[in-house]
Amino acid sequence: MDAVRVIEVKQSIFADNNKDADLLRAEMKQKGTFLLNLMSSPGSGKTTTLMRTIAALKDEMKIGIMEADIDSDVDARTIGTSGVKVIQLHTGGMCHLDADMTRQGVRELGADGLDLVVLENVGNLVCPAEFDTGAAKNAVILSVPEGHDKPLKYPLMFEVCDVLLINKIDVLPYFDFDMDKVCQYARMRNPKIEIFPYSAKTGEGMEPWFGYLRAQVAAFHA
Amino acid sequence: MDAVRVIEVKQSIFADNNKDADLLRAEMKQKGTFLLNLMSSPGSGKTTTLMRTIAALKDEMKIGIMEADIDSDVDARTIGTSGVKVIQLHTGGMCHLDADMTRQGVRELGADGLDLVVLENVGNLVCPAEFDTGAAKNAVILSVPEGHDKPLKYPLMFEVCDVLLINKIDVLPYFDFDMDKVCQYARMRNPKIEIFPYSAKTGEGMEPWFGYLRAQVAAFHA
Repeated sequence: MDAVRVIEVKQSIFADNNKDADLLRAEMKQKGTFLLNLMSSPGSGKTTTLMRTIAALKDEMKIGIMEADIDSDVDARTIGTSGVKVIQLHTGGMCHLDADMTRQGVRELGADGLDLVVLENVGNLVCPAEFDTGAAKNAVILSVPEGHDKPLKYPLMFEVCDVLLINKIDVLPYFDFDMDKVCQYARMRNPKIEIFPYSAKTGEGMEPWFGYLRAQVAAFHA
Repeated sequence: MDAVRVIEVKQSIFADNNKDADLLRAEMKQKGTFLLNLMSSPGSGKTTTLMRTIAALKDEMKIGIMEADIDSDVDARTIGTSGVKVIQLHTGGMCHLDADMTRQGVRELGADGLDLVVLENVGNLVCPAEFDTGAAKNAVILSVPEGHDKPLKYPLMFEVCDVLLINKIDVLPYFDFDMDKVCQYARMRNPKIEIFPYSAKTGEGMEPWFGYLRAQVAAFHA
């Protein structure tokens, strides 16, 4: 396997991140590249979700992945085995990405001709929610072992997300996780949030999520 | 149950958080109160760990709990049922606590005469590691479902922690979690880190952790 390219992304020089994010969103729309910002706690299964998603969709569309991390390149090396374009972004200790850091990543990845680019944000339910990256859609993964009360405790994350992915449903029998409650709490934060429960380990329940991505990418090309 | 008191803690006016943290540490030492800073990802089991710890130790020592959270008081209400002193700290969206915010909490809690005070930090493996709270010891909980690679990906957290609590060992059979590797990776970050695997849900394996706290509190009174 080739070594994964690592980019040290620098904090934005833009005073207004929201404006910059809108600009990046327009640029990506013009390129016809659907940019997804994927967020979660550490260990919720962002990388495993991506591995399954890539395997399901890579013959239908051109995919690129930007792996953001404080320090390591563990995830980028994993994604590197999937055969899609991947780049590692190092935030230099920072707990989130902003729009300009995302733009640096897109530039280094070389997004021209890609249909779908996923930014795997830093594992954190707090800070990444505060910064618009310029992505077309935001998704958060909540895994069953983390508990169904997370939308109560990390409200902003669930407010800013268009999609809630509920991962690790294969271990539902071993945890006190209330699927009805988590959906209710998430919709308190964002009534329009789309919810996909699945297990990225077994693959169970992932088809609706792949369908969502297919539809988003198709809409970008329309 | 009485309503839990909620304090909005303000960002520090101190330019040098490290100096302020040293000062708070000295103040707590003089009071004879052992202050523990408990950190982890969202959903790793900080509150469940505290409920078990309180139940085991509350007849031997006076305990106070400071629950820090972005917004809710879910955890403080849970801890409130345990019969110990508890206060909710709201960070106003901030992703960590610094020493002055911790001091505000200690003052409002009323720590005089308490043997053990635990600060349950914001659920986050990134930012809380960057700010010395003035605690005598730092502990991080990593739960089995999060995976054994976390010390590779969140290096600072494991460097600054004296104790690694490995929670949810009751679900070890259902996850690809390598106990030897996590210990090896954690010791790469801090060779002196003390490691306690347990299940806060079943109580299995918690006695050594209680023993650690007993010893720390005794040393503070010596």
